[in-house]
Amino acid sequence: MERYLVISSDCHAGLQPEKYRDYLDAQYRDAFDGAFQAQQEQIKAAEKKFLVADINADWRRGHEDDLSGAWDHDARVRVLDGDGVAGEILFPDGITERNTPPFGAGLGLPTDGIDPELQWAGARAHNRWLVELCQMAPERRRGVAVVPALWDIDEAVKEVHWARRNDLRCILIPNVWGAHAPYHHPKYEPLWDVCEELDVIVHFHSGATQRRDFFGDWPAEGEPELPGAMGTYLTEVAWWVARPLNFLIWGGVFERHPNLEVAVTEGTCLWVPEFIQLMDIRYEESHGAQKLGDYRSHLSMKPSEYFRRNVMIGASCMSRREAEARHAAGIETLMWGTDYPHPEGSWPKTREQLTEVFRDVPVAEAAPILGGNAAAFYDFDVEKLAPLVARIGPETSWCGAPDA
Amino acid sequence: MERYLVISSDCHAGLQPEKYRDYLDAQYRDAFDGAFQAQQEQIKAAEKKFLVADINADWRRGHEDDLSGAWDHDARVRVLDGDGVAGEILFPDGITERNTPPFGAGLGLPTDGIDPELQWAGARAHNRWLVELCQMAPERRRGVAVVPALWDIDEAVKEVHWARRNDLRCILIPNVWGAHAPYHHPKYEPLWDVCEELDVIVHFHSGATQRRDFFGDWPAEGEPELPGAMGTYLTEVAWWVARPLNFLIWGGVFERHPNLEVAVTEGTCLWVPEFIQLMDIRYEESHGAQKLGDYRSHLSMKPSEYFRRNVMIGASCMSRREAEARHAAGIETLMWGTDYPHPEGSWPKTREQLTEVFRDVPVAEAAPILGGNAAAFYDFDVEKLAPLVARIGPETSWCGAPDA
Repeated sequence: MERYLVISSDCHAGLQPEKYRDYLDAQYRDAFDGAFQAQQEQIKAAEKKFLVADINADWRRGHEDDLSGAWDHDARVRVLDGDGVAGEILFPDGITERNTPPFGAGLGLPTDGIDPELQWAGARAHNRWLVELCQMAPERRRGVAVVPALWDIDEAVKEVHWARRNDLRCILIPNVWGAHAPYHHPKYEPLWDVCEELDVIVHFHSGATQRRDFFGDWPAEGEPELPGAMGTYLTEVAWWVARPLNFLIWGGVFERHPNLEVAVTEGTCLWVPEFIQLMDIRYEESHGAQKLGDYRSHLSMKPSEYFRRNVMIGASCMSRREAEARHAAGIETLMWGTDYPHPEGSWPKTREQLTEVFRDVPVAEAAPILGGNAAAFYDFDVEKLAPLVARIGPETSWCGAPDA
Repeated sequence: MERYLVISSDCHAGLQPEKYRDYLDAQYRDAFDGAFQAQQEQIKAAEKKFLVADINADWRRGHEDDLSGAWDHDARVRVLDGDGVAGEILFPDGITERNTPPFGAGLGLPTDGIDPELQWAGARAHNRWLVELCQMAPERRRGVAVVPALWDIDEAVKEVHWARRNDLRCILIPNVWGAHAPYHHPKYEPLWDVCEELDVIVHFHSGATQRRDFFGDWPAEGEPELPGAMGTYLTEVAWWVARPLNFLIWGGVFERHPNLEVAVTEGTCLWVPEFIQLMDIRYEESHGAQKLGDYRSHLSMKPSEYFRRNVMIGASCMSRREAEARHAAGIETLMWGTDYPHPEGSWPKTREQLTEVFRDVPVAEAAPILGGNAAAFYDFDVEKLAPLVARIGPETSWCGAPDA
């Protein structure tokens, strides 16, 4: 009986909000206490905007014990085993909006109304805790350290060193920069240097957008949301998470750092073919762009070639359309993910989703997407995971077509 | 001998900068005089950033008389006849950066550092002059009135009435709104009302982006441009011009205004298939989005259906790739354009470009793209144009494949 090695390129973990206090540097605990209530209110308000109370209550009902896997090692092992997932990449924000690190140090890494020093303190608190969680099952877990990279690059470089020493080989940096410098700016060079040198993978995770455009000061306080706000957000969210690639590619970051690795997670993979084709067109075009002078001789390869060499896509719970588009997006580029424990993820129905999405995908193509690519990219020890996979891995007979 | 009716959905016209003075309301002439030198310097600086001096000097050399068609009726007739173009849609900014209306009332319609009252004054000056230019050849010209719609909607509505009374049946509104309300906001409702009622077509024309991200305060004043700034801009520019559609569709603007017509011009057509597919996926998706509650019941059709009903694409000088993608983008949706007198356009080599791009496109498919679609959309009198087409129209024998 053959089984898939499944690695979820997109999972989330977060401590109960009050417990982050112990992981903060002592000098930030008063600020933590002072801000705690207000932050919880904010988080509840955000949840109200993004999560329909009834649907979420429904979804959570009866899963309370399993949701505690957001912070609890034993529960997490039980859930992932049940889901057939041998390895995982751990982003912040365990249960959507409920387990976010303090001081705006969660997935969205906002820049407005944020105290950079406090955001850093919150990020460090989360990273410390994450190290502990990962060390309880190091062969199965790759933690993504939160790095608010827009402010002080020296701090960011230091945190990458700290993370790597503690066996966190991944970092999350903001995919939206507000009024700060985008990633083609030379100020980020030391960050790319250290990530390349230490083999630390840079992550962008979807969620943040220029959200003011959808959910801004209109309508006025207390008025109902504009119809269409959520639809516009959903339509754009994948663009905003892919956007940094534009700056990394054209900015020559991959040209100067051929070994720098980047993952773009939970932004679907539908945009990939058109995105890289468009950049190649802009790169190749002569007549229309000639008036603009030389904007490409600093790149020795086509944009799509950097993409294929330096970028992987955390495609999370792929839809059927995405599975059908796998060749255009690149089978070697895609990494499945369950998004556990978020309600939009496949858990607790991962088995059903895999069967539905991969029902006609040859095993030789499903295997890399479901785990093989992530195992190589994130350097999992496949030998060591083999006994676990033999016990919990989804059987290839119930998902995936036999190889032709 | 059969000939194509060619209508350029993307042309530009603009008065010599100093001559806009006479078209301004009297109370703004002092401001005009005071700002004139500074604005000319700014325009030169912008030109320097976007246009390589040598290439442009080369391109312009020997064409000076023909470039004066930007403002001169006789020259314009001679040029368009020579180019085989029977009808045209006239946007502002005649010669790139040189004939832009005063006070930031040109194509980009910026919001930063702008005095709304002056921007309106500049827009009205341009619109007055444009009426005169169009009246010299009304059967061939459709002028696009500049409407800085972000500020005061009553002003915008009044200007639409004025434009329609003066036979300008098209308006240009900003495709980037800075800190102002996006187009799903109810404040714009009177504008959509009047455009629908008076059959005035709303236009977005590519150029403006969140340009600070590419060309912002980095590097510091006087330092060289960041490598990659232009590539990132080129890659994103089509996204920023298509973006308003996201807000119009999800915001229910087309739902409430089934006869409102919108054109998106010079943003290529490559993004069309993926853009409408993505919106439909967001619309249809159930599991992943269910936590978000009801964000779509205010729409009675799929996003792609609004797109097909209410939107046309001014595809300007299509590339071969775009011609090859015509079925996916929608033959009934595409409108060719020469972009005269911009250097990235097809003029003075329109004949060669048509031959190159449409060499294997059946005449029955080339004809609507080259002119048929625009004739219907912009309500040109094809009968009246027939003698002109018989004289100047490109022969179907040298461009386009015989119909199968």
